[in-house]
Order: sequence, then C-alpha cells, then structure tokens
Amino acid sequence: MRALLFDVFGTCVDWRTSVAREAAALGLPGEQVADAWRARYQPQLETVRRGEREWVVLDVLHREALDDVLAELGLELPDAARDALTLAWHRLDPWPDVVEGLTRLKRRFIVAPCSNGHIAQSVNLARHAGLPWDAILGAEIARAYKPDPRVYLASVAALGLEPGEAMMVDAHNGDLVAAAECGLRTAFVARPREHGPGQRSDLRADAPVDVEADDLVAFAAALGA
Amino acid sequence: MRALLFDVFGTCVDWRTSVAREAAALGLPGEQVADAWRARYQPQLETVRRGEREWVVLDVLHREALDDVLAELGLELPDAARDALTLAWHRLDPWPDVVEGLTRLKRRFIVAPCSNGHIAQSVNLARHAGLPWDAILGAEIARAYKPDPRVYLASVAALGLEPGEAMMVDAHNGDLVAAAECGLRTAFVARPREHGPGQRSDLRADAPVDVEADDLVAFAAALGA
Repeated sequence: MRALLFDVFGTCVDWRTSVAREAAALGLPGEQVADAWRARYQPQLETVRRGEREWVVLDVLHREALDDVLAELGLELPDAARDALTLAWHRLDPWPDVVEGLTRLKRRFIVAPCSNGHIAQSVNLARHAGLPWDAILGAEIARAYKPDPRVYLASVAALGLEPGEAMMVDAHNGDLVAAAECGLRTAFVARPREHGPGQRSDLRADAPVDVEADDLVAFAAALGA
Repeated sequence: MRALLFDVFGTCVDWRTSVAREAAALGLPGEQVADAWRARYQPQLETVRRGEREWVVLDVLHREALDDVLAELGLELPDAARDALTLAWHRLDPWPDVVEGLTRLKRRFIVAPCSNGHIAQSVNLARHAGLPWDAILGAEIARAYKPDPRVYLASVAALGLEPGEAMMVDAHNGDLVAAAECGLRTAFVARPREHGPGQRSDLRADAPVDVEADDLVAFAAALGA
C-alpha cells in the first residue's frame, strides 16, 4: 500500500462546531444554521451526480444553500456577510488527533484528501488546520462528486497507482462502500460527534473494512506509522 | 499577492547532477546521458504543444527519450533498468537553499509547483526532496505543457485567484515571459550551474521581472518572508 486518501468534512475537520461558531459571531443561531446548511449538501451534489447541472466548485453550492437556509429560518444577513460566511468552509478546525495522525502517517504513506472540496478550499483549509497533504486530489480533478466512482479512480490514477495500492480513510460508510467498489482498501475512523450529541448514523463500520479505528492516531498505530 | 508558483526542474532541483549520478551507478556516462536526455525534452513537449500528439505524462516522454539517447550514444541497458532509470526524474535533489526558502515562503504565501511534471512525479519528488507544497498544480491539471498559457492560467484558477495575485518563480526566462503574458507577476531566480559549468543562457533575467534573486533564501528575504 502506497497512499492514503482521506475524506475531509467530518473525518478530518469538525465542520459543525466551526461553522456554528462563525454563524454565531454574526448573531445567527449557530448550530441550527450549520445543521440546516449541511442538510442541503447531499441533495445539491445529487443534482450534479444526476447530470442535472454542470459540476461547479463547492463555494457556489454553499453560497446558494446559505440563501435557502436563511430564508427557511427567517433570518436576515447582508449579501457581503453571506459571501464571507460561505468561506467559513475554508476555515474548519481539525479534530484534535488529526495533525499528529497525518504527520505520522505521512512518514510512511502518501497522504492526500479525496474530498468533495475543490482545490482552493482544500488548500485554504489545509493551511488553516495544519493538514500536511502531499497533493490535493478529489472532486475537482475528476469534475465529479463522491460517491461518483470517477472521484476515487481519478485520485488514485493521479498518483500513478492501482486502486488496491490506496486506502480510503473515512468516517462515512457510504463513501467507503463506493471506494471499495472501485477496488480501494478502506478504513473507517469513527467521528460519533460529527453531527452533534444526537448522532445516530456512522457510529461504526456497517460493511467490511480493512481497518477500523477511533481516531487518526489510533489508525497510524494500527498501520505501524 | 497570495500565491507563489514555482518551476521545478532546474529552479528547485538540480536534475543534471541527480540524473547523472543514477546513470553513472548503472555504468553509463552520467553527465552525457543527463544532458542528451534533457536536450530531447523541449522538442518532445513541442509535439504536444503543436497538437501532434495527445498530452501524456512526462514519464512516458522520458522513457521514449531514454531509448533514443542510449541508441544515439551506442549504449546498452536492459529494459527493466531503463524503466527504473526513468524514475530518476522522481528523485532529484533540491538546490541547497530550496527547503529553507520554501519553508519560509510558505508561512506567508501559498506555494505550489507549476511544472511540466505530472502529479505522481511531483508528489514523489516533493517527498524525496522535502518540498513543502500546498498543492500540486501545473501541466497535469491543464493537460498541456508550459509555455502553453493554459498551464499558468489553470494553476491560478485552481487556487481561486486572479493572475495578478500569483507570481511565477523561475530560473528560465522563456517561462517567465509566458507567465507575464498571462498576467502573473514574475521572479527570476538564478541557477547558473543548472546545465553544468559551461552554461551560457538564463544567467540573469533578460526581460523585466518583479523580483530577481540569487536563490530562494534571498527571494524569501526580498519578499519579507
């Protein structure tokens, strides 16, 4: 095995706490905004996956969804503040184990995001959160959104590898099932608080995976890194 | 200014010494092979730029050129050794100022290669040489070869920036002229020994540039990084 490909939102960074904090700083109900915003994410991606709209970077989808969320919740916010808040998705804090885990794993393996985030967002996020990626792979190089198989396969191919030489590391079972169908190895890393205290899904691996770990430090240890 | 885009072969790494060493270890005349190999590079890229052949990764071009070089010089080498030697271009040593310079520059600016190397080669090279890139940009995301303007423009666009928010850092005047025509700022970094002791071209900036420096540490100082 040569490379580890990481899901980012939820697996590496705590988007809910970070987005809620930025929304609250603008006088909005933070967690309510964060949850409603993220709830629109998969339905938006689905319009791209079904071919109903062209692939666009996530900033565009996030900005559109924010308008819908604020209208639904009956909240006011000037356009310039909406633009600025959209970039909260470039400034998400890592879970506490992530920088140490990735730094250890990078010694032995190529480490790269295979995220639905675009390159600019991923670069800004990596600089904010200290994520020591070797390259930025994922949605933008495939111009598709996970779980579209092209995203996993383009990421592996960009590294000059076969699917079986890479492992997808993820807190989301659906993403791992799709990666496994492409021939990648899989690791489930539990993030039971991604969606807050009431989370009921993705508490553990639902399907067979190669590795299951409680965080990235434990995952590094499991891989001898 | 937000991002610095770097040429790699010659600007960041000493390809001639590194390739010569690997060739010599196989019993070949190292510098002669390195120089002849590199001499085929621009003519090969030109066939892609003129649309005579599809864009392919540099490994493919390097492997083809190696066959020509060995035939021209009347040298024997088994196929497996040719394949292995081709990957010498993934293991080039940095000039002595590069790691310190890039590390300082990264604190203030996004740093990324805008090279004709492909992603796999760039990742392997960065891991070998300790180049702390924020992302791998350049030829592969544009599926074109510098000085095709699409390479500079795709690299800037991937970062979500306008051309004037990025600076191309390069030891080659031709590359800087092309980048400037795309609207990027430019910095010339002198590498007077890239082609060995007899080098006569690219000893200094031939056209107006925003910054001229003797190495990447001096360049970092010039930018206050």
